[in-house]
Amino acid sequence: MRADTPGRAPERRGLTELYEDVRAATERLCAPLSPEDAVAQSMPDASPAKWHLAHTTWFFETFVLEPAFSGYLVFDPAYRVLFNSYYNTVGAQHPRPRRGLLTRPGLEEVLAYRRHVDAHLRELLVKPGAVDEPLAQVIELGLHHEQQHQELILTDVKHLLAQNPLRPACFEAAGVSRGEALPLRWHAFPGGRATIGAAGQGFAFDNERPRHDTLIEPFELASRAVTNGEFLEFVLDGGYDRPELWLSDGWTAVQRQGWRAPLYWEERDGAWELQTLAGPREVRPEEPVCHVSYYEADAFSSWAQARLPSEQEWETAAAEAPVRGNFVERGRFHPVPADEGDPRRPVQLFGDVWEWTCSSYGPYPGYRPPAGALGEYNGKFMCNQLVLRGGSCATPRSHVRASYRNFFYPDARWQFSGLRLARDPS
Amino acid sequence: MRADTPGRAPERRGLTELYEDVRAATERLCAPLSPEDAVAQSMPDASPAKWHLAHTTWFFETFVLEPAFSGYLVFDPAYRVLFNSYYNTVGAQHPRPRRGLLTRPGLEEVLAYRRHVDAHLRELLVKPGAVDEPLAQVIELGLHHEQQHQELILTDVKHLLAQNPLRPACFEAAGVSRGEALPLRWHAFPGGRATIGAAGQGFAFDNERPRHDTLIEPFELASRAVTNGEFLEFVLDGGYDRPELWLSDGWTAVQRQGWRAPLYWEERDGAWELQTLAGPREVRPEEPVCHVSYYEADAFSSWAQARLPSEQEWETAAAEAPVRGNFVERGRFHPVPADEGDPRRPVQLFGDVWEWTCSSYGPYPGYRPPAGALGEYNGKFMCNQLVLRGGSCATPRSHVRASYRNFFYPDARWQFSGLRLARDPS
Amino acid sequence: MRADTPGRAPERRGLTELYEDVRAATERLCAPLSPEDAVAQSMPDASPAKWHLAHTTWFFETFVLEPAFSGYLVFDPAYRVLFNSYYNTVGAQHPRPRRGLLTRPGLEEVLAYRRHVDAHLRELLVKPGAVDEPLAQVIELGLHHEQQHQELILTDVKHLLAQNPLRPACFEAAGVSRGEALPLRWHAFPGGRATIGAAGQGFAFDNERPRHDTLIEPFELASRAVTNGEFLEFVLDGGYDRPELWLSDGWTAVQRQGWRAPLYWEERDGAWELQTLAGPREVRPEEPVCHVSYYEADAFSSWAQARLPSEQEWETAAAEAPVRGNFVERGRFHPVPADEGDPRRPVQLFGDVWEWTCSSYGPYPGYRPPAGALGEYNGKFMCNQLVLRGGSCATPRSHVRASYRNFFYPDARWQFSGLRLARDPS
Amino acid sequence: MRADTPGRAPERRGLTELYEDVRAATERLCAPLSPEDAVAQSMPDASPAKWHLAHTTWFFETFVLEPAFSGYLVFDPAYRVLFNSYYNTVGAQHPRPRRGLLTRPGLEEVLAYRRHVDAHLRELLVKPGAVDEPLAQVIELGLHHEQQHQELILTDVKHLLAQNPLRPACFEAAGVSRGEALPLRWHAFPGGRATIGAAGQGFAFDNERPRHDTLIEPFELASRAVTNGEFLEFVLDGGYDRPELWLSDGWTAVQRQGWRAPLYWEERDGAWELQTLAGPREVRPEEPVCHVSYYEADAFSSWAQARLPSEQEWETAAAEAPVRGNFVERGRFHPVPADEGDPRRPVQLFGDVWEWTCSSYGPYPGYRPPAGALGEYNGKFMCNQLVLRGGSCATPRSHVRASYRNFFYPDARWQFSGLRLARDPS
Repeated sequence: MRADTPGRAPERRGLTELYEDVRAATERLCAPLSPEDAVAQSMPDASPAKWHLAHTTWFFETFVLEPAFSGYLVFDPAYRVLFNSYYNTVGAQHPRPRRGLLTRPGLEEVLAYRRHVDAHLRELLVKPGAVDEPLAQVIELGLHHEQQHQELILTDVKHLLAQNPLRPACFEAAGVSRGEALPLRWHAFPGGRATIGAAGQGFAFDNERPRHDTLIEPFELASRAVTNGEFLEFVLDGGYDRPELWLSDGWTAVQRQGWRAPLYWEERDGAWELQTLAGPREVRPEEPVCHVSYYEADAFSSWAQARLPSEQEWETAAAEAPVRGNFVERGRFHPVPADEGDPRRPVQLFGDVWEWTCSSYGPYPGYRPPAGALGEYNGKFMCNQLVLRGGSCATPRSHVRASYRNFFYPDARWQFSGLRLARDPS
Repeated sequence: MRADTPGRAPERRGLTELYEDVRAATERLCAPLSPEDAVAQSMPDASPAKWHLAHTTWFFETFVLEPAFSGYLVFDPAYRVLFNSYYNTVGAQHPRPRRGLLTRPGLEEVLAYRRHVDAHLRELLVKPGAVDEPLAQVIELGLHHEQQHQELILTDVKHLLAQNPLRPACFEAAGVSRGEALPLRWHAFPGGRATIGAAGQGFAFDNERPRHDTLIEPFELASRAVTNGEFLEFVLDGGYDRPELWLSDGWTAVQRQGWRAPLYWEERDGAWELQTLAGPREVRPEEPVCHVSYYEADAFSSWAQARLPSEQEWETAAAEAPVRGNFVERGRFHPVPADEGDPRRPVQLFGDVWEWTCSSYGPYPGYRPPAGALGEYNGKFMCNQLVLRGGSCATPRSHVRASYRNFFYPDARWQFSGLRLARDPS
Repeated sequence: MRADTPGRAPERRGLTELYEDVRAATERLCAPLSPEDAVAQSMPDASPAKWHLAHTTWFFETFVLEPAFSGYLVFDPAYRVLFNSYYNTVGAQHPRPRRGLLTRPGLEEVLAYRRHVDAHLRELLVKPGAVDEPLAQVIELGLHHEQQHQELILTDVKHLLAQNPLRPACFEAAGVSRGEALPLRWHAFPGGRATIGAAGQGFAFDNERPRHDTLIEPFELASRAVTNGEFLEFVLDGGYDRPELWLSDGWTAVQRQGWRAPLYWEERDGAWELQTLAGPREVRPEEPVCHVSYYEADAFSSWAQARLPSEQEWETAAAEAPVRGNFVERGRFHPVPADEGDPRRPVQLFGDVWEWTCSSYGPYPGYRPPAGALGEYNGKFMCNQLVLRGGSCATPRSHVRASYRNFFYPDARWQFSGLRLARDPS
Repeated sequence: MRADTPGRAPERRGLTELYEDVRAATERLCAPLSPEDAVAQSMPDASPAKWHLAHTTWFFETFVLEPAFSGYLVFDPAYRVLFNSYYNTVGAQHPRPRRGLLTRPGLEEVLAYRRHVDAHLRELLVKPGAVDEPLAQVIELGLHHEQQHQELILTDVKHLLAQNPLRPACFEAAGVSRGEALPLRWHAFPGGRATIGAAGQGFAFDNERPRHDTLIEPFELASRAVTNGEFLEFVLDGGYDRPELWLSDGWTAVQRQGWRAPLYWEERDGAWELQTLAGPREVRPEEPVCHVSYYEADAFSSWAQARLPSEQEWETAAAEAPVRGNFVERGRFHPVPADEGDPRRPVQLFGDVWEWTCSSYGPYPGYRPPAGALGEYNGKFMCNQLVLRGGSCATPRSHVRASYRNFFYPDARWQFSGLRLARDPS
């Protein structure tokens, strides 16, 4: 049996290795954080890093050890509530906006919690017959879940540190920009009947299925994401002062929240700086613009006399050779081509960004959420959010794929979100 | 030239008659309102009836008389701001939540404003060569716009009066219920390639175009809307207490807003009453449930082990014979079959409701908003809202059609909104 | 028995005349209002004029007719809740911020309510033995209560109309300004033991009693209120930009609410205008500044290197000859000296203003609220408010007296409130 | 020269010792806190312990070292803004509600900041001629300021930990309750002319001066604070459900905030528990009730047919022998009689509480704030707050005195605040 057998969870030995890899990566990611950095919460949408460390562990305790490890004793019964994110089926949850007040358990205790759960998981994984196929799938889901939280740790810590007037750095910057953006090219796609969604092989979240056919009109897609330099032109052209470019709700957001540029941008004496996880530095025109909301992405598109692609268009393009080559060329699904030894890139240099599509996040035809608590994983969020595609410099490489559907509210800016233009054939 | 020539505005004589009809209908609708009823605003989403009377007039003044009536003097320059709803291209707007503070101009003065504009419109309409095709289309748009506001007058007045503990009646109830709901039948549709959107003939809003093809999976659609009786079962089964039935944002809305039943329902000593425009009365089980949000419609569907139809499914069904017959049978597009002499029905008896679909409101492929201020009519709202199809007992009969796309936010309940179930074939 | 017998209510015949006078004055005051003007509510602190008309009537119905008129039938049982302001002892209250949604009962019906109650009151007043001393005192209280609401009608209508960009006038301006402010003189007071509070004769609210002794340090009091011209100097000297002049809570209010000048002031092309009940006009430097909050009054005092007087200082001064003469000279307690035939002055021209004192509103030593519902009249508000003394151009002349204690929250600006400076002897 | 020479700062050698004592006490107090405990902020009114540690140090750096230590280099220029509490004269302030987001500087760095400032202060204190009388007074003020923050550290940490469902303990409980409340006795005071405010000797804040005369009516004062047992009777008698007992603003607070008992009280299976700094335990009837707002104190007084004392009454009583004896007897100013070696008591056992008075916090006659930034210390808060007298189990013993005026908003409950009854002679 091979790991890539359609519909199957990775083979047992592979699963153990994957478990070790993913769990260790999370802790490496948090190593530069002080206990204070790890406990604070900068806004209700963000969570403390310590909470992420505990919640991803709670996932394995709740969905793997409790049902499948005979005689398992929970580390602390109170964690059932404290570190439950949103699973009503499991029970009550500590209120999300108050996660930052949980100074206890401390970081050390949460790391002990991780070791406790890891030890039992390892025991379970090597126990003959203990992990059947459905359980292996839950474990695999837990690992992909943890990878999602790895990215959230970076977005949330970045947001937290950006609230601090000291503008602290938390990670070292890796790599250097190429110095010049690739010229923008338009790739034409003929449209027609296309098949969308996760194919049978390998892991995919439930929201990537069922794979199904759709009709797409002919369209053109830009060869690269919109750059800082291009977005700055929009800013300087009064983009944030011209309601005719904006969706109605977007214009309301601009005014209520006082947006004048992407999140983390700041003008100082005529020059533009941005805050990164490695501290402040200048806005480099050749890099993809990042930390823009859907509203800003949409307004920029209007200004550029283009539009955002639909997720179907995006996925179609991702599956076709000419663009795939181009993607590889610019490192799309390999965000750190020059630095293969580093399994992740905590800062966005010339890295990639999640790309807003114009598609509302909803169920694919025939979608049904799984039974039980894990049915809450994706389905109940299928309203009011927009799909982003691709993956960012903060996304683990093994976590990206063409059918992946990320989703956020249209005013969210703290994710590594940018945009790529599309247009109808002239 | 005939009124139904594809893409053409109604013939001039017809346009004059249409103008007189629609304008008079609005005023008839407001006749039972006291000056106080007409000025108050019960919430930011709703507008005073007086404001509707003035805004629909402002539309003609701004988009017809100002550009096309040579030498036209505006009735009052201040109205340009006071009665502009959301057209940034035209200029500033009086803040929406403060419309209810405009005690001046009084109702009488607003009616004088209407007469002033009507007189000039009539003059324009009979002047040879004054109304070319594009202008005729704007006038026709203004009349459909006014019909939309006719329905809003009813929804907004209903909401206003419902805030009053005296539970006043404003209109007389017309008609009686059949006493028993039609049995629910499921109509099967084979799916496949379908053509969606307004065909070339007759008026349609820009958001109904371009007509285009789409792929639909096989589905089944209920023969009638969900009834009060059915919805009451959901209520009594703890529907509002079971998070697993709800979208995440819906469950938040339930808790924050304390929903326990559809808007206007109230339990008194074990019996359920609802508020209508004709005052309070008992909840009749055979009538379509009304005044539910998208969240409630979706939760009910989950509870009923079904789902909401997509707007493509809905429109496909509306275009097919078996259902069309059924629709006619139950009066769908003829909400007042027993009372043909009455061009509108101000109260919902056993009348129909707008039906929530599961489709986010967005542009059809290839959609472009018109140039100029009227480009703000529909396009800028294509985010965060859901499509409703059909038409309600409060919708003017000449205003409903199969391709019509109504849209509201998912927590809106003050519209005449209900639902019809769909399901995948078993 | 004379009306001014200590502790006694006015003699019966006098009470009837007083009743007729006060009730008629309220209706005269509302005569210029349209039904729309009378129903709208511009903010939670303000009430619709129609509500004032009904509430003052409810007072007589609830506290006089219900307990004392044998066989009295209430006009409408629902009014018990609708028009109860804050008497928990009487029962529930329609929520204050929603008074503006009560389009029913209409203005006509509220006037009928007044006639109904008036008719019964008249019958009661002439019925031998029906009105004993305690009941006469309640009736007298009701009339003073209604006089308070007469002023509130003016403040609330002024606030409402000021929200309207048309800047409508509601009353005609009466009188003209003298053209020049009186020169400011400082009157010295020796301090010492002073007796404060209502003396035994004539009507006074419970909060003006018990009369008691207090110690006052020597102080000086300005001969007139601060003028617009003086306040404008403060504005132009950056008064609203200098935190060191402000109380901490005041500075917070300045920033949150964006205050830059007194309420209703507006700068247009370098000239200052203000909104009055007679429409907009220029700010006249010689008039007393009006519509300032306590915070602004306090900040102005700091800027002027003075302070606000305490209510004890104020009352002491009001009782002493030199100042009293001065007061009479400028019309303090006779706000309309030039226009004796007009029993009230709806607009502030060179009229007077309520004067903020630095005294928190609290009980006098030995104060006990009356038993029963009327104990809620004053006592429960003795926290968080500041005392104002004097009376404004909008106060009925028969309603002002030296011991009168008006009170509002320190950020309130919609009352006719100004200030007079005090200082310690140098 | 002795430390208690009127108007003089403590003699130099004594000042050094005092400095060492107070600074060390603050750090001892924070020793049990983890870095996480020290950074989090549970509400805008509370500050992180780390912030208190830094701010009290900033006070010495800003008001002593910068002006008086020649050549002093600030530890970090950014701290000028970060740790400025509310001194507009000094410059901008980091927004108070965002203090909890300052994960950097970390706890260790803040402790280094303290060592840096301490080293320079010591150098200054021993340098001949460096500390003149005014500077010595600023240093002494800084030490009393730090003692205020010592109490705030306890109140704020207590509030923070109480948000944690784990109900953690932070300090060990010291001492045991006597098991039974002292019987309540009423002490009669004759009233008359009384002298109030700080006498010339020893340190006092500016708001305790000028000492001045006042008139007091005869009154009676309870011999001890209200106990938990007495307050529980109020709770069980429906105290929180009876609007007639409450001030109007208090009743609003009860309903908006859902108060049902003092802060930190919780009913579990019919028994009452409270949260302490040493974790949860039962409500002991004999202990003084603590963590009640002014509104609750006032409502309890009404229910008990008594009232709160004025601050003048309180101070008069504190200065008179019979009560002073009583105070000593019950440990008022010696909160830890059984445990003299422990300079402070972090938990309230049978300890004392701050006592709400009915007096609004305002300036004494003739009060003028000092010139310069330190004029902001007290004066600008003289509005909207109520005076508390006494001192709590969390107050450093050397910090309490009869003339001390503590002050908080009437809805504040997180301070160690209780009440003592007063009444008028019958």
